[in-house]
Order: sequence, then C-alpha cells, then structure tokens
Amino acid sequence: MLVVQKFGGTSVADLARIRACAARSLRLARDGHQVVVVVSAMAGETNRLIGLANELVGYDGSGKGPYVSHAKAGDTAHERELDQLLATGEQASAALFAMAVQSQGGSAVSLVGRQIGMVTDGAFTRARIRGIRRERIDAELSAGRIVVAAGFQGVDASGNVTTLGRGGSDTSAVALAAALGADVCEILTDVDGVYTTDPRLVPSARKIDRITHEEMIELASLGAKVLQIRSVAFARRFGVPVHVRSSLHEREGTWIVPESPEMEAPVVSGVALDRNEAKVTVVGVPDVPGTVATIFGALGDAGIVVDMIIQNASRDGITDVTFTVPEADLERAAGILTDLRIEGRPLQVVTDPRICKISIVGLGMRTHAGVASRAFRALAAEKINVEMVSTSEIKVSVVVHERYGELALRVLHEAFGLGEAPDASG
Amino acid sequence: MLVVQKFGGTSVADLARIRACAARSLRLARDGHQVVVVVSAMAGETNRLIGLANELVGYDGSGKGPYVSHAKAGDTAHERELDQLLATGEQASAALFAMAVQSQGGSAVSLVGRQIGMVTDGAFTRARIRGIRRERIDAELSAGRIVVAAGFQGVDASGNVTTLGRGGSDTSAVALAAALGADVCEILTDVDGVYTTDPRLVPSARKIDRITHEEMIELASLGAKVLQIRSVAFARRFGVPVHVRSSLHEREGTWIVPESPEMEAPVVSGVALDRNEAKVTVVGVPDVPGTVATIFGALGDAGIVVDMIIQNASRDGITDVTFTVPEADLERAAGILTDLRIEGRPLQVVTDPRICKISIVGLGMRTHAGVASRAFRALAAEKINVEMVSTSEIKVSVVVHERYGELALRVLHEAFGLGEAPDASG
Repeated sequence: MLVVQKFGGTSVADLARIRACAARSLRLARDGHQVVVVVSAMAGETNRLIGLANELVGYDGSGKGPYVSHAKAGDTAHERELDQLLATGEQASAALFAMAVQSQGGSAVSLVGRQIGMVTDGAFTRARIRGIRRERIDAELSAGRIVVAAGFQGVDASGNVTTLGRGGSDTSAVALAAALGADVCEILTDVDGVYTTDPRLVPSARKIDRITHEEMIELASLGAKVLQIRSVAFARRFGVPVHVRSSLHEREGTWIVPESPEMEAPVVSGVALDRNEAKVTVVGVPDVPGTVATIFGALGDAGIVVDMIIQNASRDGITDVTFTVPEADLERAAGILTDLRIEGRPLQVVTDPRICKISIVGLGMRTHAGVASRAFRALAAEKINVEMVSTSEIKVSVVVHERYGELALRVLHEAFGLGEAPDASG
Repeated sequence: MLVVQKFGGTSVADLARIRACAARSLRLARDGHQVVVVVSAMAGETNRLIGLANELVGYDGSGKGPYVSHAKAGDTAHERELDQLLATGEQASAALFAMAVQSQGGSAVSLVGRQIGMVTDGAFTRARIRGIRRERIDAELSAGRIVVAAGFQGVDASGNVTTLGRGGSDTSAVALAAALGADVCEILTDVDGVYTTDPRLVPSARKIDRITHEEMIELASLGAKVLQIRSVAFARRFGVPVHVRSSLHEREGTWIVPESPEMEAPVVSGVALDRNEAKVTVVGVPDVPGTVATIFGALGDAGIVVDMIIQNASRDGITDVTFTVPEADLERAAGILTDLRIEGRPLQVVTDPRICKISIVGLGMRTHAGVASRAFRALAAEKINVEMVSTSEIKVSVVVHERYGELALRVLHEAFGLGEAPDASG
C-alpha cells in the first residue's frame, strides 16, 4: 500500500512528538508500505514568522483578516518574501522529522515544495496547485525511503517559493495522494475523528466512521478544526479516500470517501452549528429585474461572501430580500448597501448579528422525504422560532436566534438519532 | 558600480538591525549602484537549529568538533537533513531583509542558494562551490532590485540543499562578487576592520587600511573573528577586492586587495598571536628515508593538521623532529605517535601544551632582509627565549613559552613600528 500521512503543527510541536510520529511512520514502512509523510510547521512557528514580518512593516497586530501581513496585503513583492519566509517553517520540521526516522534506524529524506515537484501558479500566499512532478518522490520511494514532504509550499514556474494559504498542508497531502495514486491520505491530528456534532456542546455526539466527501464539505464547520475543507473538495475531485484519525493512538478515525452505489447512507450524518453568521434584510425593494443582481453584485465586488438568501413573495411590486453574511463583514456590508441606489432611491437595511445557523447534512436526504419537516417539528416542540430556512439536496439549514443555538443543536442531534450507535442491521 | 555587501549574524540579529542594514543597502542603491546583499542567519539561529538536531539524535552537546551534529558526523543521510534544516536560517533572514528594504520604499527580492544559481558538489555540511549560474541575479538587478541572497547555502546537481560550512556566508559573498565581476565585496561586521594586532592585547594596535590577500591569509588569526579565511583564499584566486568595515558607520575599514606592482608594501603589516598550538618533539628518530613520512602520514590520516616543523641536524644517524599541532589534538597526536614503530622500535614522544606562536607578516619582507634578526633582537632584549622558528616568504613565526606570549606580541608590534601612523611620504 502507498500511504500519505499528514501530521499537523500540534503533532510535530516539539522533538518528543516528532519522535513519536516518526516512530509511527516507520512502523508503517516496516509493515511493507510505501510512506509519504507531509508535515506542517511546528505549532506556533508560522505565527512567529508572521509576527516578525508584521513588526517589520510596522503593523501593530490588531484587527482581523487573512494570515498575510495585514499592512501589506495585495503587495506582491511583500507577499513573495512572506512565502519565502513562511516556507522555512515546514522545511525545518520536515528535516527534523526525517532525522527522527533516521535516528530510529529508518531511512528517510525530506523534500521541500520544489523537490516534491509541487508546481503552483504565482499567486503568493494563496497559490493554486498546477501539477505535481513525481519523479523525485518515485525515486526516493523506490530506494526504500520514507519521503517527508514539507507541506503548505510549492514553487512557481519562475522558481519562486509559494504557499497554499492557511491549512495548506492538508491540501498538499491530498494533492500528493492524488498524484501518487495513494491508497489513503491519513490526516493525523489531536482528535479522534469527525463527530456527528460538536462534542463540547452535545455530550452524546458520536464519532462518524464513514462519511462522503460531499457530506464533509457541507459539514465544514464540524471539520474545520480537524482538516481544511478546501482539501476535502480537492479529495472529492480526485476521489482520494481521506482518513482523519488521532496521532496519539492507532484506533480508526473517520473515513471520508467517495460515494459508492453499495453505500447505505444514513439519512442524517451530522449536525453543525455556525455562530459566525449575521442576518441582513433589505426592506421594500422594487421587484424589478436586476435588483437582486445589483445588491449581490455590490457585495461580491467587496469580497463579501453571501450564504443563505431568501426573497419573500412580492406584494404590490415591492419585496424584502434577506440573507446572511459573515458576522465580521456585517458592518461593511451594511455600509455598502446603504450607499446603493435602486431606481434612484436608497435601500432600507435592517441587520441582526444575533443569529446562528444550524445545518443538518446527510446523503440519505435525497431519498428520504420529510427531513425538513421533522426538524421543524422538533424545534417547534421546544418553542424555537425558525427565522430562515434553506435546503439543498443533502442539507437543511435553519437560522435561529443565537440564544437558542445550542439548544437547537441538541434537539436536532437527538431528533435524528445521531447519539445512538448506528443500526448494525443497516 | 556593482557592490556585494555581506552582513553577518550579529548585523541582522534583530529586526532593528535588519532595518538599519537595509537602509544602508538602499542608500547605496539610490546612489546609483547595483547592490547584491548576502546575509547570514540571525545571530544564534544556526546554533539553535544545530541544538535541535543534536537533541533529536541523542547527542548531549559535550565535546568539541565541527559544527555538524556530532553523534552523526559522516552520516550522509543525516548531514543532508542538517543542511536542509540549517539553510532555513539564511532563507528567513534574507526574506526579512528584503521586506525591510521594501518597507523603506525600495525594491528588493530575496533569493536562496538555488535561486542565485549557487551550484556545489554534494558534500553536505562542507560543500564546495562548482559554479554560479547568474541569470536570475542579472535579471533582478536589471529590473532595478536589490538582490538579497541567502548566504552559506547552495544546491547540488540533484537539487539537494547544501551548505558551505561554518562561515560559509563570507565565501558565498566572495564567490558572488567573483562571478558577477563586482567592484568590491564588502564584509560588514561589528568591528572597524583588521588591526595590526589584537587591540585587546596591544592598545596601540592600529587599523590596517590596505593589505594583500596573501598577507591576510597569513594573518588568519587576526581576521578570524572578522571574516572566514577560506573566503580570502577564494578572493585571492579570483582577484576580488574585499572591504572589511563596520556595519555601524560609514567610515572606511580595511581593504584586502590583490598585490599590484605600484604597491609600496610595508615591511610588516601585522603581528598575530595564536595560543591554540602545542609542541610535540619526537626524540631520537633514526635519520633514514621514510621516517618523517611515517610520522606525518599517521597524523594526516587522523585528520590532525601539523603546522610548524623543525628537524634538527642529524648526529650519528639519529635526529629529533619537533612540530606544532592544534592543542585540542595534542593528546590524540601523542597517542598515535606512541603506537607507531620505526624499524621495529617505539618512538620517544615529548609534548608541551604551554607554548604559543607569534607570526609577523608582511609582503615587504621579500625585499627587506633582516626581519627575522630584528625580531630575535627585540625578543632577546626582553629575555624571551625563542623555542622554534619558521619562516616563509612573507612570514616569520616564532614559538615561545605561553607566559611570554602577550609580551612578545607587544614587543614585536613595537619593534616594527606598527603602532605609529604609516609614513605619509611612503
């Protein structure tokens, strides 16, 4: 078997943990498997380097935003240097990991982005993978070595170092697994797998044994702490089986797999709570062609991602449009909308940050009717008012007042029997 | 003008100093010069990384030796990883330096060993430069950018990262200056230049304005804290003018230049004290062909560098051989010699670690007779016994008891008038 094993920053946070992870990879290799390890930087290192860069350009570190030095976002020359700087984190941890394998009697070689042939476009700090030239990896594997690849990084056509953006090591691992035709891409982390919902909020939450890529993407917020959702989309595209499991023990975690015909999908796989959304209602909008395009075009131009959208039925040529945006973008969104004019008139905008979104996801929904109504009944029994609803083929999302968020999560988790062991009779 | 500027680890030890050095390079660029900067890792970083590697392979950090992880010296796979690890230090400081130039309104790009086309052999941790492919640097300079090169590192023919050994950044800088045909290679450091002798021992020591590569090499111990002597040999081979100067101010330092016909060389340029030698005498050696070869062959095989060698005139077919070795190797050397047999008989070995060597260096010695006798007279006047003497074309070295080392240094410094300002009519 060819196995890609990705170890995150906490798994390689210090030399003791690096040694333990190296021992694990070495056991796998000694069992006769070919092993490609992908490592993140040691926990804290990437933030330390970003801190240096920010200090250098005079940024005081306040505010939110992407992981690039904030004062210089969009400055290509600066972002190029930032990638050159940040890539050292994974280069160092990969070299240490390879040494750890060697010091336990194994054979290993560390390879940086360029050496694994990870060719990307030239979009520094957020590069996209163009392809992987696997010759060097193939040669090292054939020589019986464990390949320890530096995650998160690549090289552009001009030989510049690039990085794939926050969480890019997951994407590196999945891309390598796809290019090499690996049997599995293991994501080794500090939790046991993906749960039916957040176990801190719902104690009866159960580890999911098996879930499809599609479901995992819809349950993004459940997986967010475990693996980068972008990498799941990548795994889906190339049909890479991903196994999310603990780096602390050998028990099975959660398999994220392509959907297969023989799969008996549970109706609902998981329930996720997202507190970071806010609601915007544009009241009394003229119901004429182009109105909605004007509103969402303006927000899209500003880089604001709109999630759920509901448009009420028109009455007397006037309608309301309600949607959600990330809470962090709410003020900016309101400002943009207030400045807009439709047929020469300003818009009336009502915002509400005190909401949250609960999503019920399951491949089985496609063939099982009544998931939405079962959810509404369960919520109504607890007198939880549903402010918005949207449904897709495998997901039902509801928006409720934030004070009911955790209660709604528990109610829905219970209503779909997620806390119980799965029925062995299938 | 094309200027190569090398900043050592203390010059880029923190962000404030990086900013100051970047400002200096930027001034030079704004004066219309093309600037290639070569940086070391931030002070302490290389040792930190070596510490991690040593800890990983279970080395306790005791003992002396080369800078590689001691427990694994000679292990190629380990040394490859060590180079991959150590190279991150200069990659990071180069990126930060480039950012610092940019944040002051300049244009800069950092390049690692591979990107500057620094091709070496595959001798990890002590690679030799094979050549420099200058296309990328030329393109960046033509685009008006300051090139900030990561020192100390290269890439072998297989694309592996290599390092040039301790102090390799000086060699990187000189090699770049040679390949680019730079007008000068500036070594910016925390002292004002090279002195006629160690100013801490001889307060009247004077900064040397101009010295040849040959003299500088012979005065290695004076320059050792300032620049790597290997880089001076490199500079000599390619005729690169080197300017050792302070990174803290703009005053002229010491120029290390090729000898030129019009040069009026001072008889003596400098006097150096070396306390790290020890004396070995092999007594009563049969004066037959091959004896000396046996002795020095055995030491050479063990990697022990022998410096001064004196063989007394033979009497009755028996002779004494006296020589110096690094004090750290003395015990090992004695052991090797004691185990040797010449004509079936063991050697009688006498060692003395309590010596030191003083060297007087000057290009003018070639045409000025009497330097050695002047030195002996000066030492005799202070009743300092000379235990060994060796002379070369531009150097006279004497060995004295270690208790007279500093006195001898002052006496000779004075005897050759090094403390006075050079004669302006010269």
